[in-house]
Amino acid sequence: MLQNDIFLKVLKGESVERPPVWLMRQAGRILPQYRAVRESLSGFVELVKSPDLVAEVTVQPVDELGVDAAILFSDILVIPEAMGLPYELIEKKGPFFPKTIHQSADIANLISGEEAAAKLDYVYDGIDATVAKLESRVPLIGFAGAPFTLLCYMVEGKGSKTFSQAKKFLYAQPEDAHLLLQKLTDTIIVYLKTKVAHGVNAVQVFDSWAGSLDKKTYNEFCIPYLKQINDAILPLVPVILFSKGAWFSLAELDQIGSTALGIDWNMDPQFVRNITGPDKVLQGNLDPCVLYGDADFIRAEAIDMMKAFGKNHIVNLGHGVYPDTPLDGVKAFVDTVKAFRY
Amino acid sequence: MLQNDIFLKVLKGESVERPPVWLMRQAGRILPQYRAVRESLSGFVELVKSPDLVAEVTVQPVDELGVDAAILFSDILVIPEAMGLPYELIEKKGPFFPKTIHQSADIANLISGEEAAAKLDYVYDGIDATVAKLESRVPLIGFAGAPFTLLCYMVEGKGSKTFSQAKKFLYAQPEDAHLLLQKLTDTIIVYLKTKVAHGVNAVQVFDSWAGSLDKKTYNEFCIPYLKQINDAILPLVPVILFSKGAWFSLAELDQIGSTALGIDWNMDPQFVRNITGPDKVLQGNLDPCVLYGDADFIRAEAIDMMKAFGKNHIVNLGHGVYPDTPLDGVKAFVDTVKAFRY
Repeated sequence: MLQNDIFLKVLKGESVERPPVWLMRQAGRILPQYRAVRESLSGFVELVKSPDLVAEVTVQPVDELGVDAAILFSDILVIPEAMGLPYELIEKKGPFFPKTIHQSADIANLISGEEAAAKLDYVYDGIDATVAKLESRVPLIGFAGAPFTLLCYMVEGKGSKTFSQAKKFLYAQPEDAHLLLQKLTDTIIVYLKTKVAHGVNAVQVFDSWAGSLDKKTYNEFCIPYLKQINDAILPLVPVILFSKGAWFSLAELDQIGSTALGIDWNMDPQFVRNITGPDKVLQGNLDPCVLYGDADFIRAEAIDMMKAFGKNHIVNLGHGVYPDTPLDGVKAFVDTVKAFRY
Repeated sequence: MLQNDIFLKVLKGESVERPPVWLMRQAGRILPQYRAVRESLSGFVELVKSPDLVAEVTVQPVDELGVDAAILFSDILVIPEAMGLPYELIEKKGPFFPKTIHQSADIANLISGEEAAAKLDYVYDGIDATVAKLESRVPLIGFAGAPFTLLCYMVEGKGSKTFSQAKKFLYAQPEDAHLLLQKLTDTIIVYLKTKVAHGVNAVQVFDSWAGSLDKKTYNEFCIPYLKQINDAILPLVPVILFSKGAWFSLAELDQIGSTALGIDWNMDPQFVRNITGPDKVLQGNLDPCVLYGDADFIRAEAIDMMKAFGKNHIVNLGHGVYPDTPLDGVKAFVDTVKAFRY
């Protein structure tokens, strides 16, 4: 039995006295404890592949911030790597893939599904270690990148402001794109099922580059794969879909029928509620930059947001917390939510 | 008298048999003629400051592509430079400001209005040279960056995926932010009026980083300054406001009353028309990546878009054309529009 299950209660539609709160990237550079672990290692990928350290950094924000959920420290790019495209994380530059996807032969060479997911024992070992270390204090969230967002990196080979090469791939080689998206989907489903078997209590799917597309393209290349993932995982644990920037397809995302939708700060709560209605669980959506403001400003913005979303809400930022956010700002945010009552 | 005034006719609400077409960044790397000029120079800023070369590259797309308008080759960052913050453009990295804005004293040190706009004779000379070279074939568009987008660079000092430092400035120093935005607005107004006096037939204001904000913040820090600019210029020439990513404030942008609104590809035409109605002139909005596809695909997408917007439409992309776009794709796009009839 979990000591604090307010996060899962909201996902089940049960009544709570205040919204639960956690932050995307809460296990990360905002915490001095995390920076100490990170500095003892040669690189980010080494941390991702060390189950005991994964457990340590995953639990740090529960201890330090008192958040209502832990999210397993990992990276969305472990999936492309397991499928046959290894990556490096270059300090201050981001991910880099020495090998990228250009043609159908490249896709044929990728392994997928059970075979690929079986390469990720270090993630499952990290879950085992985290579950032991959490001692049932709060639920544990597992995550995966959405197929389109992973395709972006696998084609582009690195981060991008436009992901123009990845989008070129969709427009110029749509059949290849669908082949790759299906292989990714097959792998993500087995991966998330295995995470659940190891004890995660909910999953979140991050479509971080959704906002680079238009509605028609998103509905063709993204929605059907998100639906496959949702339909495979929903019978097991709650599913949160977070398609950053995909306001234009919010109705289609809502129709997938996931337990909850993640919401970025571009969408004001009223816009979202007009589409989803009052009963859908929504997660978000304060602009991460609000946490650079003073405590009074943070408190006022957080309270306005909670009132605007109403019930069936999980408090979070609209994106991962930025690494240089003052810890005091993060604490003011979490403490405001925990003191709030409907 | 202009030989081809279809662009201005649409802005005046007159009837035309097909929409006019031009492309943001049409004077640029997509053209071999431009690359030849660029390679003869030490840098981008040298080109911006050479009136005869500005005229040459501004007219190139009229000759090569047959577009219905020319847009003066320049850079939005000439305004910060004129106000006292010089910049460099670092190849493959983008703009860099050695000096940035941190506090109110930095803002007090900036010159503005007439005094700053008077530093930009090289731009006005470029207009004179371009007007002569165009020989009244098509109208000439002048542009400026919007106050918020210029603030982003002046605070951040360089490009950014999040502009988190610039947004921190809005949230943590709102009074300083308003001071800077007003100084920028005062300068932009004199700058655009002087451009009109030298012969530009319309102006476009680019709020390129609008999409980094939420609705409340956009309506506080951006809309009032765009309105000041619009109200000062609209009596002189048509004004096009292009706030990329600001779908959430589209109603407020519409209410400013500019001649036209630029639309990015995230917004489908139906979404926009539902807010603006059928009479507002809209400019956009094909995803620039569509031009990587084959000619049949480009043609089909362009025709779908023109039908969806209906009349009172200026065809463009939803963002500047990407430098590696095949020239054949650009030509297929322009030719499709020119062959289209309502």
